[in-house]
Amino acid sequence: MSSLDSVFERVLKKVDENRDQIIELASQLVQIPSVTGQERDAQEFVKEKLAEMGLKVETFEPNLSELRGHPSFFETTSYKKFGYNNRPNVIGIWEEGGDGRTLILNGHIDVVPPGPEEEWRYDPWGGEISNGRIYGRGSGDMKAGIAAMIYAVRAVRELEIPINGRVLVESTIEEEDGGIGGALATLLKGYTGDFSINPEPSGLDFWIASAGVLYFKIRVKGRPAHAKEAHRGVNAIDKIWLIYNALKELNEERQKRIKFPLAEECEPYMKGHVTILNIGVISGGDWPSTVPAWAEINCRIGWPPGESVSDVERQILDKVREVSERDPWLKENPPEYSIIGWRAEPSMIDTSDPFVLKLSDLAFRVTGKRPRFCGGTAGLDTRFFINDFNIPSVGFGPIAHNIHGINESVELDSIVQVTKVIALAIVELLAG
Amino acid sequence: MSSLDSVFERVLKKVDENRDQIIELASQLVQIPSVTGQERDAQEFVKEKLAEMGLKVETFEPNLSELRGHPSFFETTSYKKFGYNNRPNVIGIWEEGGDGRTLILNGHIDVVPPGPEEEWRYDPWGGEISNGRIYGRGSGDMKAGIAAMIYAVRAVRELEIPINGRVLVESTIEEEDGGIGGALATLLKGYTGDFSINPEPSGLDFWIASAGVLYFKIRVKGRPAHAKEAHRGVNAIDKIWLIYNALKELNEERQKRIKFPLAEECEPYMKGHVTILNIGVISGGDWPSTVPAWAEINCRIGWPPGESVSDVERQILDKVREVSERDPWLKENPPEYSIIGWRAEPSMIDTSDPFVLKLSDLAFRVTGKRPRFCGGTAGLDTRFFINDFNIPSVGFGPIAHNIHGINESVELDSIVQVTKVIALAIVELLAG
Repeated sequence: MSSLDSVFERVLKKVDENRDQIIELASQLVQIPSVTGQERDAQEFVKEKLAEMGLKVETFEPNLSELRGHPSFFETTSYKKFGYNNRPNVIGIWEEGGDGRTLILNGHIDVVPPGPEEEWRYDPWGGEISNGRIYGRGSGDMKAGIAAMIYAVRAVRELEIPINGRVLVESTIEEEDGGIGGALATLLKGYTGDFSINPEPSGLDFWIASAGVLYFKIRVKGRPAHAKEAHRGVNAIDKIWLIYNALKELNEERQKRIKFPLAEECEPYMKGHVTILNIGVISGGDWPSTVPAWAEINCRIGWPPGESVSDVERQILDKVREVSERDPWLKENPPEYSIIGWRAEPSMIDTSDPFVLKLSDLAFRVTGKRPRFCGGTAGLDTRFFINDFNIPSVGFGPIAHNIHGINESVELDSIVQVTKVIALAIVELLAG
Repeated sequence: MSSLDSVFERVLKKVDENRDQIIELASQLVQIPSVTGQERDAQEFVKEKLAEMGLKVETFEPNLSELRGHPSFFETTSYKKFGYNNRPNVIGIWEEGGDGRTLILNGHIDVVPPGPEEEWRYDPWGGEISNGRIYGRGSGDMKAGIAAMIYAVRAVRELEIPINGRVLVESTIEEEDGGIGGALATLLKGYTGDFSINPEPSGLDFWIASAGVLYFKIRVKGRPAHAKEAHRGVNAIDKIWLIYNALKELNEERQKRIKFPLAEECEPYMKGHVTILNIGVISGGDWPSTVPAWAEINCRIGWPPGESVSDVERQILDKVREVSERDPWLKENPPEYSIIGWRAEPSMIDTSDPFVLKLSDLAFRVTGKRPRFCGGTAGLDTRFFINDFNIPSVGFGPIAHNIHGINESVELDSIVQVTKVIALAIVELLAG
């Protein structure tokens, strides 16, 4: 047994000893609601935990003026609703030695709303432990991952294994809403590094790709009239229907054309649907007795690496223009296109990167299973690391169920396994 | 010259003498905003005017429990929004002699909102007099009519012409929203009579019919899913589209089938459109990244006398059922139908009624023009008089332009003519 092997064994043992505390921490985190925009209480808690471990802890609230102008910037919905006050990012810093490399462990503290609570079998904010799982909103996405990365650092520190370099333990905000004030702001603040692990609930596989995501709105005008003489008006709903059908057509064309084997192999039900244009909201008109003067649809389009946001935008605009030119009213009153949230480029890490290979070996060592390369159907914070800062970043985290859904849960054993892999990675990458 | 003729001449002369005051009163009324639900200030003003004339004035706020249960009842939108407090109906009573008949003069004080004020060339609440017209919201619909009916009574009283019977001068609320708490409540309160004139802006013609009007909503369910796996959901917007198209089809079938020569002759642009189903509002889904779990459309259907509300409702429900049975999802998740405001039966007065003929003669005498019989495309308060209380009721009022629209106006000369006709009617019908 090599010296590194024996260190590894001690690390694995230490994590096993801490199993109950890891699970306890994940459950505690679930018990602090932190829906995007309202992250403060959970961040205070994380801050204390990091300080208790003896890390140097820094926090900052995002400053819009420092973000605006960056190519990946967009104004998030939660910024519009809540602003960035009382929404700190928290960074725990463990630094030893002078010139070593930096490993970033980044997790997002925010969660999506629980949805109709009466449909839950468990309290979404209960963090209840049952059947070998923790239940609750954010249990899988991604408070278990945050607990794992904290306890990975803790294990190595408790064993007093020296490192030469830095580990940043980051709990950031608003990933669910685009991560602009969270991961991007944290990178722009100077918290950069050489590699990053993002313990999103990847099911012990590697999420190596992030989807392109664009939220947009198309609005059309009508000509209002009183309902009793509706034939003198132009109903905007009739016109938005034309756009609706054109966008559905575009979606079908794209789904026929665009393949992404990575996603299709990991998630077979995604076959033929690796890109999806979802028309998520429709609205139009103000009153039953008036011919609608306006109508609009709000859409999300997601797509795997291979096309830029501009590529996709151009296809949308071309399609809208095409249908508008066939309709005399729309030709004279062209639909308006605007961005209403996410405008994220896709990203993908080079799978031959030594960091990826090393991490894969460690995962295999812990789980006995070689992680598959997956991803590309959801927008992740990893894209900022990869696209904007050229930091190889892998999503690697526990096995979760019903992410964003009712009765979300995460498997306990997988949390411990993730903790082990991250702890080994700290040793492997940074040991002094 | 008969004795009645000479009385008529005195009445006509008196009205001419009062011309400036009539116009002044109409303009003053326009200057008191009284959008449906906020009628109080204007009603206070009318109350004072009626009291000044020496009428006995009674006022009451509608009481929902006295209305509910009546076959013509529906809960109005303005009730839902404002309740009925501070929304009095005002009744001026002129009673002389013991056993004569009662003539009801009924006008509604409420007006529709002005719409985008920047599009107006005149202050919508200015009551400005220009080019032989009064401009402003409610000038035509129907504050000029209220001024006319008040000054008609005033002329006869100033001349001390005795009557044997009663004149009720009623300013009622929420006609624009269905008249439940206004004209219907006033009739139910006991203010009934033998004939009624309603000086709506009929353009010196007779509005003898009121349209059936129904506001309804169709709501469908979808199956929500995250946009990134939209193909696992069912988009409720796709389903509401099916309903939308079915209702458009129903509208076309009905427009081919249903004729109403009365309306088509008076308003040639209504030819082929005497019934209209307007889809006035669409909404669905909550968020661009979620497959919509619901969608709905709010509609108004109007139709001329000939079909009951139940007839029309049955056609709508049949159509919705028909399309739902062809779609597996809708078959299992049937659309929900509900009433969202107006549910008004059409009405029509018998044109051979002696009251109608007499009033027509008087109008001819004043204007030199025989009024045409029109109506049936808008819902009017007259329906309560005709349908529910068997009181012959004619809409007869001034010439207005852009009712409910931008730069609404009413022609001054026509206000004076209407005042004359009503004054003569008081004498003709009630003179002692």
